[in-house]
Amino acid sequence: MRTIKLLLAYDGTDYVGWQRQARGRSIQGELERALAEIEGRPVAVVGAGRTDAGVHALGQVASVQLVGRIETSVLVRALNAKLPPDIRVLAAETVAADFHARYAARRKTYRYHLTNGPLASPFTLRYAWHVREPLDLFAMREAAGRLPGRRDFAAFQNVGTEVASTVRTLHSIVVGPGAAPFPAPPAPGSPASVEVAGEGFLRHMVRIIVGTLVEVGLGRVEASAVTAILASRARERAGPTAPARGLFLVAVDY
Amino acid sequence: MRTIKLLLAYDGTDYVGWQRQARGRSIQGELERALAEIEGRPVAVVGAGRTDAGVHALGQVASVQLVGRIETSVLVRALNAKLPPDIRVLAAETVAADFHARYAARRKTYRYHLTNGPLASPFTLRYAWHVREPLDLFAMREAAGRLPGRRDFAAFQNVGTEVASTVRTLHSIVVGPGAAPFPAPPAPGSPASVEVAGEGFLRHMVRIIVGTLVEVGLGRVEASAVTAILASRARERAGPTAPARGLFLVAVDY
Repeated sequence: MRTIKLLLAYDGTDYVGWQRQARGRSIQGELERALAEIEGRPVAVVGAGRTDAGVHALGQVASVQLVGRIETSVLVRALNAKLPPDIRVLAAETVAADFHARYAARRKTYRYHLTNGPLASPFTLRYAWHVREPLDLFAMREAAGRLPGRRDFAAFQNVGTEVASTVRTLHSIVVGPGAAPFPAPPAPGSPASVEVAGEGFLRHMVRIIVGTLVEVGLGRVEASAVTAILASRARERAGPTAPARGLFLVAVDY
Repeated sequence: MRTIKLLLAYDGTDYVGWQRQARGRSIQGELERALAEIEGRPVAVVGAGRTDAGVHALGQVASVQLVGRIETSVLVRALNAKLPPDIRVLAAETVAADFHARYAARRKTYRYHLTNGPLASPFTLRYAWHVREPLDLFAMREAAGRLPGRRDFAAFQNVGTEVASTVRTLHSIVVGPGAAPFPAPPAPGSPASVEVAGEGFLRHMVRIIVGTLVEVGLGRVEASAVTAILASRARERAGPTAPARGLFLVAVDY
């Protein structure tokens, strides 16, 4: 029995999310199906981040235990041949037997893509949240600067999730002008991005942070109000949950 | 009656092409439906380039004659409200009464996006042709350099199309390292692009040029052979027709 670490990229648009569900196609389900075909027995895959429906990954990590003697380079090719083209295995390596993709993760980085301007590009509909009214990136940066550190992020968690603690460590948050959408359309407007790195995240935490920063960027909430929102621990004080389609799990560090 | 020039961008993935067809959704059909709702009567739209199924546009131009007195800025908003999100009107302007988007076009620019490397990104499946084996861009450039000018491009036209003449003027062709796909995945490989500008193009001409350049890039055809392929006027001497999904109509000049 070997433990294998897989590096994955996927377009989450057409999936119910990472996690296997009673109905619908999941990333985990597709991987387990492909691995079961290779191993000839049922296989369970553990993902570092359980991305929601519509959320994408550039660098998701998963762990799996295999009995077969297949070489890792051959495993990558075999998996990609069996997976749909919107899920790709970028790399595979044999790791310590007790490696667990979720429990061993020290740091996760997410990036959220926004487009801003009067017109939404037809080419980023699946990969960005379009905001029509002008966004003040300076105000968004000022608000974002109040978030890093070890804090109680209860106000930035979706309602109805039960967790032992809502305290999390946010390492950094960078509000950038964003990568150019592919292909860049001649439409007026510009891209923006919010990149967040932390030890771990509450359910919908990144999307609620982005929704709150957008409220600040639109001038509806003062940048300084973020401190009071954090202190309130009240979900209704924070901004809306930004749509899933703009969110990418960029990297998981161990 | 006013003549209006429309500037359009669209993701052609889910369309049968620019032109109205007996079955399936076309870009022209969607525009005519939206304009008919605004005008309250049937409206005919002329497009500068009749892009094929799956081909995209960043700067398609269309002309239409309207009787209503709607302001052009209001027309842009009204059309975008009625069109599906993968078709956007970027601008509208009133032009000379006899302006015809197709006959008046002096120059069209197309760009073809390629990705190259062992893995295809899940994020450019709709917008690029993925070639696994390494492409020699220098050889592709050498081959491309033999194409510009006023020439008989009969070898670069799809079989079965009847035209009065297969002579066309190609202004320029640039083989570039390409724009970064959005979002850039951590997969090994790199993008490339072929940008072509000309007075007019034969059916599938850009895609056959790209298919031929890729054969050169893969080392299957010598760069110098392009001269003999042109002279042969024989479609079977040129390379395969590159898939529609990588092609973008970038601009039309008048």
